[in-house]
Amino acid sequence: MATIHSITKLTDKKYVNLYELDGMNSKGYKSHYLIASRSDSIEGLKLISHRAQPDAVAIYAVCDDKVVLVKQYRYAINGWIYELPAGLVEDGEDYHDTAVREMKEETGMELQVIKVDPMIEKAGFTSVGMTDEATATVYGYASGEITNKFEEASEEIEVVLADKEECRRILKEETVAVICQYQLMHFIADEKPFGFLDSFKQ
Amino acid sequence: MATIHSITKLTDKKYVNLYELDGMNSKGYKSHYLIASRSDSIEGLKLISHRAQPDAVAIYAVCDDKVVLVKQYRYAINGWIYELPAGLVEDGEDYHDTAVREMKEETGMELQVIKVDPMIEKAGFTSVGMTDEATATVYGYASGEITNKFEEASEEIEVVLADKEECRRILKEETVAVICQYQLMHFIADEKPFGFLDSFKQ
Repeated sequence: MATIHSITKLTDKKYVNLYELDGMNSKGYKSHYLIASRSDSIEGLKLISHRAQPDAVAIYAVCDDKVVLVKQYRYAINGWIYELPAGLVEDGEDYHDTAVREMKEETGMELQVIKVDPMIEKAGFTSVGMTDEATATVYGYASGEITNKFEEASEEIEVVLADKEECRRILKEETVAVICQYQLMHFIADEKPFGFLDSFKQ
Repeated sequence: MATIHSITKLTDKKYVNLYELDGMNSKGYKSHYLIASRSDSIEGLKLISHRAQPDAVAIYAVCDDKVVLVKQYRYAINGWIYELPAGLVEDGEDYHDTAVREMKEETGMELQVIKVDPMIEKAGFTSVGMTDEATATVYGYASGEITNKFEEASEEIEVVLADKEECRRILKEETVAVICQYQLMHFIADEKPFGFLDSFKQ
């Protein structure tokens, strides 16, 4: 395993910062490594804190046999992208509550969370080659009226309830987030959207 | 859709940089947005280039009914994490060739790529709320001797051929990348590892 000798904070921003590490691995290779992080301090970096809580949640929810997606404007691409409803976990917030809150904010809908084995909803790293950001996936059923009246001012979101045919069109023609892409592939291929959860019944 | 008024490059590094945007969305909300990017220039940011090529590939490969994983040291967490074999696409390189090259470098094995509908291997965004990084998934069969003699000096990798029982242990006990977590869930649940591809036959 490598050893980290020093960590330098390169920026001082609120939601994302860049850090530079100097280290050496067990082969004697000297590394200058860059990490983007949601943490605003060196102490908060997961390489120090080893914090297991997710930074964000993604929600795989269905409503009347359609999957709930958000078509969202994102600055990172200056355009629209199809994603699972998602959002950042607030300080002290249980991530299941984050999922319920974000579903309400982004779609207006109520989320009834499915209780699953913790092993399949624990935080996974989104792109560990460049960031320590980790996301937990929450599964559930969405219901109620679709509205954007709970949407944050910073967001531009259109709610999409997609059947298999529409999911196929989205995969083919639209810009998609990779974890959404994976869920849509299996939503299309599987007989039941949550059928795979049967393998993880407690 | 929002309008971006200015983009500032906050760092000047090789593999990852941080950029700050000022913009305003269609509701009149003024945004200061931060983006981490593999691009070392403003012109290279996807919000300007709208480049559809993936920055990286992830490889979902099986060998004798086991899934090929890499247990890799990552600076972002100062520890080991289970991932799909993966790597950055080099300039001018076809991403299928990236997958073959990275499989060789990271595991020593040969990758026979499965030809699939482009809609399921196109680049998906890993975490579009903070980065314009996009990853294409390549599917295939791996074979040959496992060795680390092609591994780059900067990497510390252990190859893991995991059956369903080991995948279950990994999901439960280990640190895992989110796209690896998703593939493992379906590898465990599905009768055939590539059965879902039948829904996308051309």
